[in-house]
Amino acid sequence: MAITTAINTGDTICAISTPPGCGGIAVIRISGDNALQTADAIFKSPRQKKIADAAPYTMLYGNVVTTAGEIIDTVVAAVYRAPHSFTGEDVVEITCHGSEYIQQKILELLITAGCRMATPGEYTRRAYLNKKIDLAQAEGIADVIAARTAASHRLAMTQMRGEFSSKLNELRQKMIDFASLIELELDFSEEEVEFADRTRLFSLANELQSRITRLVESFTTGNAIKNGIPVAIAGETNAGKSTLLNKLLGEEKAIVSDIHGTTRDTIEDTITIDGILYRFIDTAGIRETKDQIEKLGIERTYKKIEQSAIVLWLSDINEELSPEYAEIQKEKDGKNIIVLLTKCDLKTPAEIASSIEKTTRQTGNETKTIAISAQTGDGMEELYAALKTAARHPEYENDIVVSNIRHYEALVRARTAMQRVTDGLQTSLPGDLLAQDIREAMHYIGEITGEITPADLLQTIFSRFCIGK
Amino acid sequence: MAITTAINTGDTICAISTPPGCGGIAVIRISGDNALQTADAIFKSPRQKKIADAAPYTMLYGNVVTTAGEIIDTVVAAVYRAPHSFTGEDVVEITCHGSEYIQQKILELLITAGCRMATPGEYTRRAYLNKKIDLAQAEGIADVIAARTAASHRLAMTQMRGEFSSKLNELRQKMIDFASLIELELDFSEEEVEFADRTRLFSLANELQSRITRLVESFTTGNAIKNGIPVAIAGETNAGKSTLLNKLLGEEKAIVSDIHGTTRDTIEDTITIDGILYRFIDTAGIRETKDQIEKLGIERTYKKIEQSAIVLWLSDINEELSPEYAEIQKEKDGKNIIVLLTKCDLKTPAEIASSIEKTTRQTGNETKTIAISAQTGDGMEELYAALKTAARHPEYENDIVVSNIRHYEALVRARTAMQRVTDGLQTSLPGDLLAQDIREAMHYIGEITGEITPADLLQTIFSRFCIGK
Repeated sequence: MAITTAINTGDTICAISTPPGCGGIAVIRISGDNALQTADAIFKSPRQKKIADAAPYTMLYGNVVTTAGEIIDTVVAAVYRAPHSFTGEDVVEITCHGSEYIQQKILELLITAGCRMATPGEYTRRAYLNKKIDLAQAEGIADVIAARTAASHRLAMTQMRGEFSSKLNELRQKMIDFASLIELELDFSEEEVEFADRTRLFSLANELQSRITRLVESFTTGNAIKNGIPVAIAGETNAGKSTLLNKLLGEEKAIVSDIHGTTRDTIEDTITIDGILYRFIDTAGIRETKDQIEKLGIERTYKKIEQSAIVLWLSDINEELSPEYAEIQKEKDGKNIIVLLTKCDLKTPAEIASSIEKTTRQTGNETKTIAISAQTGDGMEELYAALKTAARHPEYENDIVVSNIRHYEALVRARTAMQRVTDGLQTSLPGDLLAQDIREAMHYIGEITGEITPADLLQTIFSRFCIGK
Repeated sequence: MAITTAINTGDTICAISTPPGCGGIAVIRISGDNALQTADAIFKSPRQKKIADAAPYTMLYGNVVTTAGEIIDTVVAAVYRAPHSFTGEDVVEITCHGSEYIQQKILELLITAGCRMATPGEYTRRAYLNKKIDLAQAEGIADVIAARTAASHRLAMTQMRGEFSSKLNELRQKMIDFASLIELELDFSEEEVEFADRTRLFSLANELQSRITRLVESFTTGNAIKNGIPVAIAGETNAGKSTLLNKLLGEEKAIVSDIHGTTRDTIEDTITIDGILYRFIDTAGIRETKDQIEKLGIERTYKKIEQSAIVLWLSDINEELSPEYAEIQKEKDGKNIIVLLTKCDLKTPAEIASSIEKTTRQTGNETKTIAISAQTGDGMEELYAALKTAARHPEYENDIVVSNIRHYEALVRARTAMQRVTDGLQTSLPGDLLAQDIREAMHYIGEITGEITPADLLQTIFSRFCIGK
């Protein structure tokens, strides 16, 4: 108990931890110094057993009763004792029947008995404050809950289980070594002696720099895994872009859930196909125009295409490939382009084959051309297969991948500071300035795991969680 | 274990028992002879502890891992041993993080390890087959989960906790007593002696008959509590009926959830206001018409008004109360009528007062008149208060109330059979015929608790449950 009282505000919190709505059962979690006593206040076991007397990791069967003696539900209370619980505090989990009425009523009784409703992410926040997990792990939990594909799940698990953190700690340890070499020199600075071997320092700084860079660069992959591979749907006006998007959304192969903190806008265009998450970006049609407003729309389209990893270029099978296509292909920059000849349902197989052949002559063999019809679904399977091929993630199996934008930003700042260190070593910068830069880089790395964390950052991070976690 | 193998098909089932979707945590329930072993197949505790070795009512912390060794999640496994579990079988409940991906993945692993997906209500069905609960209690569980108001919750709890069943068993015991008195006589029928005292039999039959009748009659209350008090929204065409309904639905004071087995149609018009459930029934406008189709619509309207407990009669404040109102008032039959003068937003308080006074002269003081405007919300609070007064349930606090239509039908059949017994006693029907009737009545009562239950009835009852319960 000493562990918890030292850190938390002493109050006991409660919340429904299972998904909202009606189901077979639901779990209400109570955490804090008085968790056991508060639970006892609303709980009656048929054999008069007390939750406060129960051994850790055991369950008691009984009823939740009002002070007036009305039985609200027959439940099971699971008992965890500090520090051996998720939050590190005393915890009781009440498993009740999954009616919304019962769930609300039990919360009501707990609040009357002295609990406070937990704020979003407060359990995880307490776990962090009680040093059960670090900040990156806490963020990993939110990502684990939100993960919708095997890849994003695996990535989040790495973070939740602390593998990402230990990689960072390793990095930080090397920085400490580096700093102490420099500081040793500073201690004797009056004597104008260079203790630290500059060549060795330079090689160490380079290694740190390249490790951080690798992490920074992994963010493209991590972000695609977590938020979906950006796919721009572009092409001439009226080529059927919105129809295709609706078709894709309609054939969605995984349930898209309304995750706390994710805006509806983002969800609408995110689809899992064959276990890969895509973020489809519908764009305004591209055509020569003098209309000022339309021009702005087209500019935006080019920007979106630039940010995407895959471009689906739609062209009506009855029309010529527009000259704007050449522009896209020219500025391809490693992107995968798939040309879709739309409205093919009224064409014969021979006509389709000839159209594909003609298009391929214009686009080159590298670019895949598929004839589709959003109406009949023709070509959709081929499109899915082509997307899958185009989406192939770079290998990251045994490597740590950054997927959190906060971590990415901290790493970018750390890299800039490290860059100053390597530059400084080459320009023979004095040791105290080098030490300052390396300490700055360490600070940014420390921010990721939460060793150095401003209070408002914590607020931002935990408010993204759902209540009950 | 002997208890379970005797009855179930031996297979081990699994399902997500918490509400569908994403949340902090989720619970996956495994039940059956191999529950512990199957859970062990996907579970690794850091200290190599086995679920199969765990004491009942204890929890183990560990990881769910694939056969390839990939960690899917960090979980807690709660262990219950037959017969001391909900189903009466060995049960493991795995509490995992509430991501849909994790939930699906764990189910997948369990199925690979030999589990079968549970069918809707299969856990409860097994609890029934293993005699942990009777059929009325099983139905009570579904009702407890679906209950949305304090009253319907209390009613369902009575049923789930077996109070309704014990009332029925009492009744059945009295029937057995009655039957044995008659049958004693039959054993000696050759001797043409009347052993059973006909007066005593008659008084016993009467008591049984009146007990069953009380239960049958409680269904009006029980049904109103469970499915909502039927409120017809009626009145002249264009008086603003649909606008009012939308207003009521829009101001809904409780969340209406999409409960398994409840059709969308019913839910749309069901609203909880101040803890009371109402079922609002929109009707076609009433007016003199020669149109054959419109006439049919109006006939239906009268029928709906007949089935309702409260009638909201809407009349445009600018128009006269229509002559059809008199018809409704005449055939009122214990119903509460509330007259709503609509579109009052453009009237001055004086004009409104005079309209209300004029209407009250026509309707009589018993009928409440309220001026409302669905546009501005004027009068809505008064309407809610009037509904609450009109909705007052008959006292049932210490009495058993029937709320299940299956039970109601069985009780009606039992009453008919009992009626034949009392009639038979008066017309000196031979004992063997009386015995047959009393046995029939007992059969219907037995159907409620499931002592006599055709297999297809079980199918119907349990398919109404959600999966995971």
